[in-house]
Amino acid sequence: MFVSDCLSVNEKGHLTIGGVDTVELAATYGTPCYVVDEDKIRENCRAYVKSIEDNYAGNGLAIYASKAFNCKAMCKIVNEEKMGLDVVSGGELYTAISAGFPTDKIFFHGNNKTLDELEFAVRENVGRIVVDNMYELENVNREAKKQGKTVNVILRIKPGIDAHTHSFIMTGQIDSKFGFALETGEAMQGIKAAIAAENICLKGVHCHIGSQIFEVMPFEHAAEVMVKFMADIKAETGAELDELDLGGGFGIKYSDADKPLEYSEYMATVAGVLKSACEKYGVKTPFVIIEPGRSIAGSAGITLYTVGAVKEIPGVRNYVSIDGGMGDNPRYILYQATYEMVCANKADKAKDYKITLAGRCCESGDLIQENAMIQRVEPGDIVAVFSTGAYNYSMSSNYNRIPKPPVVMVSGGKARVVVKRETYEDIIRNDV
Amino acid sequence: MFVSDCLSVNEKGHLTIGGVDTVELAATYGTPCYVVDEDKIRENCRAYVKSIEDNYAGNGLAIYASKAFNCKAMCKIVNEEKMGLDVVSGGELYTAISAGFPTDKIFFHGNNKTLDELEFAVRENVGRIVVDNMYELENVNREAKKQGKTVNVILRIKPGIDAHTHSFIMTGQIDSKFGFALETGEAMQGIKAAIAAENICLKGVHCHIGSQIFEVMPFEHAAEVMVKFMADIKAETGAELDELDLGGGFGIKYSDADKPLEYSEYMATVAGVLKSACEKYGVKTPFVIIEPGRSIAGSAGITLYTVGAVKEIPGVRNYVSIDGGMGDNPRYILYQATYEMVCANKADKAKDYKITLAGRCCESGDLIQENAMIQRVEPGDIVAVFSTGAYNYSMSSNYNRIPKPPVVMVSGGKARVVVKRETYEDIIRNDV
Repeated sequence: MFVSDCLSVNEKGHLTIGGVDTVELAATYGTPCYVVDEDKIRENCRAYVKSIEDNYAGNGLAIYASKAFNCKAMCKIVNEEKMGLDVVSGGELYTAISAGFPTDKIFFHGNNKTLDELEFAVRENVGRIVVDNMYELENVNREAKKQGKTVNVILRIKPGIDAHTHSFIMTGQIDSKFGFALETGEAMQGIKAAIAAENICLKGVHCHIGSQIFEVMPFEHAAEVMVKFMADIKAETGAELDELDLGGGFGIKYSDADKPLEYSEYMATVAGVLKSACEKYGVKTPFVIIEPGRSIAGSAGITLYTVGAVKEIPGVRNYVSIDGGMGDNPRYILYQATYEMVCANKADKAKDYKITLAGRCCESGDLIQENAMIQRVEPGDIVAVFSTGAYNYSMSSNYNRIPKPPVVMVSGGKARVVVKRETYEDIIRNDV
Repeated sequence: MFVSDCLSVNEKGHLTIGGVDTVELAATYGTPCYVVDEDKIRENCRAYVKSIEDNYAGNGLAIYASKAFNCKAMCKIVNEEKMGLDVVSGGELYTAISAGFPTDKIFFHGNNKTLDELEFAVRENVGRIVVDNMYELENVNREAKKQGKTVNVILRIKPGIDAHTHSFIMTGQIDSKFGFALETGEAMQGIKAAIAAENICLKGVHCHIGSQIFEVMPFEHAAEVMVKFMADIKAETGAELDELDLGGGFGIKYSDADKPLEYSEYMATVAGVLKSACEKYGVKTPFVIIEPGRSIAGSAGITLYTVGAVKEIPGVRNYVSIDGGMGDNPRYILYQATYEMVCANKADKAKDYKITLAGRCCESGDLIQENAMIQRVEPGDIVAVFSTGAYNYSMSSNYNRIPKPPVVMVSGGKARVVVKRETYEDIIRNDV
């Protein structure tokens, strides 16, 4: 019925998430409000952990790409579910450490980590620094030397695959700000430099082919390309690398048009390709890392808003204004992302009203969705927008000096705040 | 030489803003860092204030659209320069009040003010509430009654002008989430309701035809349409409204391709049209309000970044990664906005290097500009991106949990921090 099976309708006709009445949540915590189903997140984590068990006999690690949705509570959940953590900044690393996340299971990503961040990461002994480029490799080695340490490193490689072209054009993905290019020889040059670097221990290679991908074939192709590259490394340098990080990018369901893969299916297929590639190219099966982010948090979250003005413009469209907008969900104005929604307090009624859901920011592009179907709404109604668990809170701004909404987690039928609502005092706290 | 005359090059070959060496600013305050020329902002404010003097004999008010760039220091400057203030949220209002801004010169805008915000605005006696729709009108009246007050109100009208079509299509702008539509009769209906409302004093009407407009003609057309509407109101209700708010939208120079109007020229032309329209339609010349935002702050600001990795991909492009990105300037990923830039420490050298300036966020679309010309840069260089004074700090996010940069103001050759850099502790302050 809904895009996520954590959503349902109760006997009052109200939308529920994780069994909790969203109309009551709106009354208790106010709107706008992010609500995340913790049990659903844990279920998603377990599916990935189990996939590593099932397909690689546990010889691998699922790490959560925390840029999708990061806060202390989320780091704790990920740790309890025995996953690793992918961070992309000092801020994400700081959050993880504040939540007691074991740093040896943290992977530090990013195309341009600052020198301060590298100092921080080396000092905190993060598990792996995923090195993006030659300049960074030198900086990591220098910092490691300064601190008298050897740093475990993975190199980010551009495998030359653009998942979204559906044709695996080998020159497509070379036009990226991320990683060492395979086909120009830059990648092999990076590998040799990493092996030669005194304070670096090269553990493996990484690739990431894109986001919100629904086909398994690009992943199969990437696995094959990367195993072949590991074989090339062995042939050229004698080094047999232990680890292969296949990145993330698994699509989720924003609307019925989206047909995401079952994680288990994806994992089984890719594992098969990977193992036969290892045999074919004569390298040992590596420790496999995967990096789900959106597919852990995305469809486990919704956003609740209160309807304000309803503006019916005859022959044009019906604008329904809510008390949030591009500040808490910039994905429509950024990417024209698709979202489904219901009126939470009329969730058992038919969706027979075509609307444009408009935000409250002073910007005409501040819309959450155009031509969306919803129940007939009026001022004071609660609207729930689905699949906002990833890249909503994490991308939120204070545009128009609007405080960020809180994040409420539900679990076992109970709700708790995991990120408090910002106050006006928060907004001006750094103003001199 | 540069897009703003507050920028220059000193004897060291360094870029200066307001006479202050930007390389020294970067060393003192770190990067990324917003730098704003306070003297330039005051000059811009004075130009608008003078225009009201010159063209309306002082019978008007220039109000700063603070969504462009709002902080306590900015509110103080605007007040000292004798302008009013346009706020669009409780957060902007709270900031203004914290800075001691006189609330009777505050105009409260927005398509969907919340009930809490209306309570706040009425309690603080804001000068004008610019009412967007019928539902809001009822809410304002109810709140005013509750507090035993009469609230001064202006109605936001859609004049049916779309400045960007260059053809003034009268049905274009009707498709907007903002305001009462003129041609459907909704506007006149709103006027009558406002006049009838017990706790509302209708002071005037407002329109806003768009953003970053370079032609004077759409403004002339809007002035004429609005004066005609005021005459219609007089004819239909007998009420002669005192105030006409013509909004903002004056374009600024992001690159040499942009040819902004001189404010004085715009003001003189529009004032001429307005006065003759008043004569033609037989209404008194109203008190005129204008709402510059971007044109006050935009070209008075720059952002300083440090160069990290430089990735030259033969036959593809040269990626120059910086320590900021879409978190502090989302305008390229949002609107493909044009920005010019220089290497601040090589500002006297030729710009003979074509680059893509890439942000540090883990998102391939996180670019500040593509195909931009700059001096030959290398890691550690300082890059200054111009015209970032508006809609950069105000739209900034913590995506990837990256702290927001500070805002440094320069004046009389001296620099001071007006918004402190966010810390990691700030990032997690609301995490439970």
